[in-house]
Amino acid sequence: MSNDALRALYADWTEIISTTPDLTTRLFRSIFDEWHQPTREPEDVTYREDTVGGVPGIWTLPVGADTSKVLLYLHGGGFAVGSASSHRKLAGHVAKALGVTAFVLDYRRAPENPHPAQVEDGVAAFTGLTEHGIAPESITTIGDSAGGNLAVAVALSLREQGLPLPGRIIAFSPWLDMENTGETLVTNAATDALVTPPLLEGMIAGVLAEGKIDPTTPLANPLHADLTGLPRLYVNAGGAESLLSDATRLVDRARAAGVDVTLSVVDDMQHVFPFMAGTAKVADDEIAAIAAWYAR
Amino acid sequence: MSNDALRALYADWTEIISTTPDLTTRLFRSIFDEWHQPTREPEDVTYREDTVGGVPGIWTLPVGADTSKVLLYLHGGGFAVGSASSHRKLAGHVAKALGVTAFVLDYRRAPENPHPAQVEDGVAAFTGLTEHGIAPESITTIGDSAGGNLAVAVALSLREQGLPLPGRIIAFSPWLDMENTGETLVTNAATDALVTPPLLEGMIAGVLAEGKIDPTTPLANPLHADLTGLPRLYVNAGGAESLLSDATRLVDRARAAGVDVTLSVVDDMQHVFPFMAGTAKVADDEIAAIAAWYAR
Repeated sequence: MSNDALRALYADWTEIISTTPDLTTRLFRSIFDEWHQPTREPEDVTYREDTVGGVPGIWTLPVGADTSKVLLYLHGGGFAVGSASSHRKLAGHVAKALGVTAFVLDYRRAPENPHPAQVEDGVAAFTGLTEHGIAPESITTIGDSAGGNLAVAVALSLREQGLPLPGRIIAFSPWLDMENTGETLVTNAATDALVTPPLLEGMIAGVLAEGKIDPTTPLANPLHADLTGLPRLYVNAGGAESLLSDATRLVDRARAAGVDVTLSVVDDMQHVFPFMAGTAKVADDEIAAIAAWYAR
Repeated sequence: MSNDALRALYADWTEIISTTPDLTTRLFRSIFDEWHQPTREPEDVTYREDTVGGVPGIWTLPVGADTSKVLLYLHGGGFAVGSASSHRKLAGHVAKALGVTAFVLDYRRAPENPHPAQVEDGVAAFTGLTEHGIAPESITTIGDSAGGNLAVAVALSLREQGLPLPGRIIAFSPWLDMENTGETLVTNAATDALVTPPLLEGMIAGVLAEGKIDPTTPLANPLHADLTGLPRLYVNAGGAESLLSDATRLVDRARAAGVDVTLSVVDDMQHVFPFMAGTAKVADDEIAAIAAWYAR
């Protein structure tokens, strides 16, 4: 039940970021593609590259999974970094525990593609799945960090367009607040090994086109969205992380809007602690809890 | 039949290396872990992390493979970079084509662990496989670049110790010459997008403990080894690459020693062109040729 591998990786990235003032987006992407390292290869899972609704990605296909049910996985990384490759193993663990398949999107990333490119790609993939015969209610939008934001925003965009919604939403350590005002940015600053306000400022500048897009735009910042009518929602966060108050604010707002919400906050955990799947009991227990919630 | 994706990745790395004079081993490892990118996820292959003979690694397990036959895969990266993760997909493609399993080693890397740590880990894993009931002749040592060197050196070390040898050896674009004297280092300098004498000098310094180890040590430089008695050997290289003359010299020396050798040189190809498995016909054709050689 160690949080050490993930914290060590984050501390290492923080060291690189703080000592390389001109770190390029290119190298940022290189180091964040190491996000898979704390995750053990899930056993009995195969993979297939594909394009769904015009969006490339990787299918994770647990042996014996119910192929009529799909997790549409939106990876984290501040909308700018991370990839289907960096999240393949994590998605594989979750899909396997739930007995379903997952499609991990390589959506267009910022800053080359600012908001709403990421939401559009999520919606396109969702629609593509339905056109391939997957029932909307059998799709779960799921993501971590910025991908947790997208998992919610894709559902909101579908609702705006009068399209059917996913059956469930899962958000690991969602990053939502593009105004960068969360109280745990301050109160957990000493315990979070990775996420800091300046790091987030850089990511916000990228996804919001250097200030051209309003940080309260609901599809970019679901804390400013009307959450009414969303499907049931699972949110988690680590107790040690700077973005904890993004998770709790989302949960509060969703509950106020009448959404069926489950929140899991695990003490001492870092940002997106399920990345330790297969290597730390705390991550496996969390994924087992999600499987129970999913099956309910 | 495009060589573009691999060449583009190499050109990108070369740009980073040439514009970052103080590039750390840490960041070198980060960018070289992108080596998997030109390789498509092989379908119908599962993975399992394991430790064999005390050495960690990843099993690639094609569905329906003959589990009594194993490729002991030694990754490339100048003995210093690359990993089981960067080579998982490539090993999966080869194992699937051959109808066998592969164990991709995370051997100890230089410069923290100079020669002969890498050879020792390969021998330990080989012995571990035999202790798990795999017949020596059912094991193929296989690797690319520095791993192609290790695929030969592990067999030579086993022979020196009077232990049974693998049944076959496969070397993709092997890097062997620790004296850095190959003629194609000069004649292919304009066409190789990655490998240069200064890059190799840095890798040599790391694996040979900053000059403390003789560059003609046979287990570090198999071009100086007696190759008598090696099992049948498949060697390939790209026609465009700086290390082509390492492959051809190995083949000449092995033939002179009476080894059954097959050489495949493919015009215009870059270093370790099988990395384009699943994305370029030339790589898939090469792997199919290896499968035919394997089954012979």
